[in-house]
Amino acid sequence: MAKFNVTNPSGFPEFGPAAEQKRQAWLHIISRSFQSFGFIPITTPVVEREENLLGKGGNAKEMYVLKRLLDEEGDPSHSGNALRFDQTVPLALYVARHQNEITFPFKRSVIGPVFRGERAQKGRFRQFDQCDIDVIGMEKLSLLNDAQIPAIIINIFKALNIGAFKVRINNRKILTGLFKSLNIAETQMKATLDIVDDLEKLPREKILATFTEQGFNQAQVDKILEFVSVESRDFEILKTLCDHEEYLEGVSELQTVIEALEAMNVDQDSYIIDTSIARGLDYYTGTVYETSLTDHPEFGSVCSGGRYDDLASIFTGKAMPGVGISIGLTRLFSQCLEAGLISPDRSSPTEVLLIAADEVALPSLLSLGSNLREAGIVAENYLETKKLAKQFDYADKLGIPYVIVMGEQELSKKVVQLKDMKTGQSETMDIQAVASNLTQRA
Amino acid sequence: MAKFNVTNPSGFPEFGPAAEQKRQAWLHIISRSFQSFGFIPITTPVVEREENLLGKGGNAKEMYVLKRLLDEEGDPSHSGNALRFDQTVPLALYVARHQNEITFPFKRSVIGPVFRGERAQKGRFRQFDQCDIDVIGMEKLSLLNDAQIPAIIINIFKALNIGAFKVRINNRKILTGLFKSLNIAETQMKATLDIVDDLEKLPREKILATFTEQGFNQAQVDKILEFVSVESRDFEILKTLCDHEEYLEGVSELQTVIEALEAMNVDQDSYIIDTSIARGLDYYTGTVYETSLTDHPEFGSVCSGGRYDDLASIFTGKAMPGVGISIGLTRLFSQCLEAGLISPDRSSPTEVLLIAADEVALPSLLSLGSNLREAGIVAENYLETKKLAKQFDYADKLGIPYVIVMGEQELSKKVVQLKDMKTGQSETMDIQAVASNLTQRA
Repeated sequence: MAKFNVTNPSGFPEFGPAAEQKRQAWLHIISRSFQSFGFIPITTPVVEREENLLGKGGNAKEMYVLKRLLDEEGDPSHSGNALRFDQTVPLALYVARHQNEITFPFKRSVIGPVFRGERAQKGRFRQFDQCDIDVIGMEKLSLLNDAQIPAIIINIFKALNIGAFKVRINNRKILTGLFKSLNIAETQMKATLDIVDDLEKLPREKILATFTEQGFNQAQVDKILEFVSVESRDFEILKTLCDHEEYLEGVSELQTVIEALEAMNVDQDSYIIDTSIARGLDYYTGTVYETSLTDHPEFGSVCSGGRYDDLASIFTGKAMPGVGISIGLTRLFSQCLEAGLISPDRSSPTEVLLIAADEVALPSLLSLGSNLREAGIVAENYLETKKLAKQFDYADKLGIPYVIVMGEQELSKKVVQLKDMKTGQSETMDIQAVASNLTQRA
Repeated sequence: MAKFNVTNPSGFPEFGPAAEQKRQAWLHIISRSFQSFGFIPITTPVVEREENLLGKGGNAKEMYVLKRLLDEEGDPSHSGNALRFDQTVPLALYVARHQNEITFPFKRSVIGPVFRGERAQKGRFRQFDQCDIDVIGMEKLSLLNDAQIPAIIINIFKALNIGAFKVRINNRKILTGLFKSLNIAETQMKATLDIVDDLEKLPREKILATFTEQGFNQAQVDKILEFVSVESRDFEILKTLCDHEEYLEGVSELQTVIEALEAMNVDQDSYIIDTSIARGLDYYTGTVYETSLTDHPEFGSVCSGGRYDDLASIFTGKAMPGVGISIGLTRLFSQCLEAGLISPDRSSPTEVLLIAADEVALPSLLSLGSNLREAGIVAENYLETKKLAKQFDYADKLGIPYVIVMGEQELSKKVVQLKDMKTGQSETMDIQAVASNLTQRA
């Protein structure tokens, strides 16, 4: 014992029985929602060439390379590979490999692990499941796709049932157009977007100081702050705030997206226009999304994404616009567990435990177990030779709702005792009647 | 384009739309079967400490360690970790960590990736999903668990529907007892088991030569070959072949397992006693399993496992016997794809594609799409501005079975055209009737 340190390596998720069953229920909800809109699941490799990952934004400080502990052969196929850090670069590579077989627009979904060698920190994972959907067009892609994305996300968050949430929607052209109209230089655009992105997180003085650092004059700062304070679905007002072409294009695109959401009858309390969100990432060029839990702003954005003009031209040589969104499943699930938003109820999928009061009843119970499973009931035979109290204890500890007991007496009469573990009540019933009785109770 | 090599790194699975949907159906079958017997899913970390993996049989030549491409900080939590190469060592570590919370017998299931840095070779994966179930007892574990394992496997292989298969069952005590009775030394046991394991794969002369190499006399060789030729459920005959205590214990255990399988009404054509199988791995001590596809012996054993006395005493200091089995999902799935045993039928989950003949019908189609999804139908709106023929082409290429078309005329009458893509027949129907009509067709 003393020889081995069996504690968990930092940052790699482990989920025990109760949590894992909830996590699988989440996975089911997410993949079912993705598919219900016609998104096509694919598996992309977890490993890609280092240079391909670095070429699309990989951070060498966080990227994990794979090396064998003992590498005697010097097999070149073992060198130069690294673990993916997101689901987007593998999508770009997948599209580059298969562009001639793919039917565009390509609506792909993916759920799987990504790896980031971040600093060890509570709540930070070095491996986590990322659930992504993207629609990729060949050269063009209708703006209506930008409306479908939040519709799906709203579906999912309603089904997850972790409290009120809001999908915040914006269009980056609104911000970039506004900045251009204020003569904010192209080179300052990125910094300005980053400040706007931080508006909610930082105190006002700090924002003003940062703007001053960037050399903005008071008129520019006032206009930006006035603008981002607008939070409205009234596009007629938005259109009066600035007359820059790019700005007006952004407003018009946003209006199309919102109108499509309305046409899809999406619950209007679940989304909102928020002209302050910009998303830090360089590659978003139009619609952007963030999602927050109303009662847990400290979680940050739990689901983000947007529209981009160029998925993979460095790999494909072709313009492929896309729009997508990503749920950081492992982080969100862990946050919800910790905040008590998920209450794992039982530690076993078993619906009924079959217990032998005398060993002679075991073969009949084995047969009954098979029959119940065939009837779609999760039935588990207790197989150890233990006292009855110990067997009930097992059902109790795992939260199994029903127990069937059979001893010599019951065997001779072809009956069982069926006990409801919640009420504590038992009833005797014919062995042939058990399956239909349990099915009715479920 | 010339700059980047976008081909797949060797050994890491990638599945496109059609295959991936089948793969997910497999995953669903497997996890549902595991759970139907009360097996509890858990997530164990994909990364563990190198010394823990090496301490339980890890092969340094195949073990992948994780290093960051650029490691400036020298954060010690980034060193000394490696990717798991199976699901058993992570289970042992999980049990060591949580032995005080676990309710024994612990029936755990796990489905997830493992990593092995093997030589690049067709059909060899360096990362693959392994689906495992194990029952772990605290100090003791009933032999009946050894019968439950093949019952589950038979369930799964029937549901996978990839042709006839056989689960071969044996008990290693039969072989080790026999060898002891023939005065085959303890030190030769392993080598002898390996030869027996190879019996089917090698020609008889080669086997004889190997036996001679090992220094066996003719009487010993004859007895071994006579014995392994027996393939029978007649335990009374088996009991007469050798009177060694360990041999007889093995026969008796095997008989108990087979009788329990009969009590569970498990299809007797799906399993067979095969006294020649031994499984190479050192740690099996009793029941052993192999599974082969009748028409594809070249696949080898597609699902193997057995009983072991000691899961994790090096980590826990306690005797914990277990019995388990493993499906190498990625390999089996790829073999089946290649052999044509799986025929992916369509490239999209979409059941009905909604097409606008005129743009003015789009909002109504968006609304109809939402209604259909709410009725449980996988409904996809085609959102691009394309000619009707191109839109139908999309449905065709993805194998979508139904298409709904709405133009200006249909919009004004509140009807749609519903086209069955297989028969080519269209019918006009009230927009309100579409959901129930499609539900009936499914």
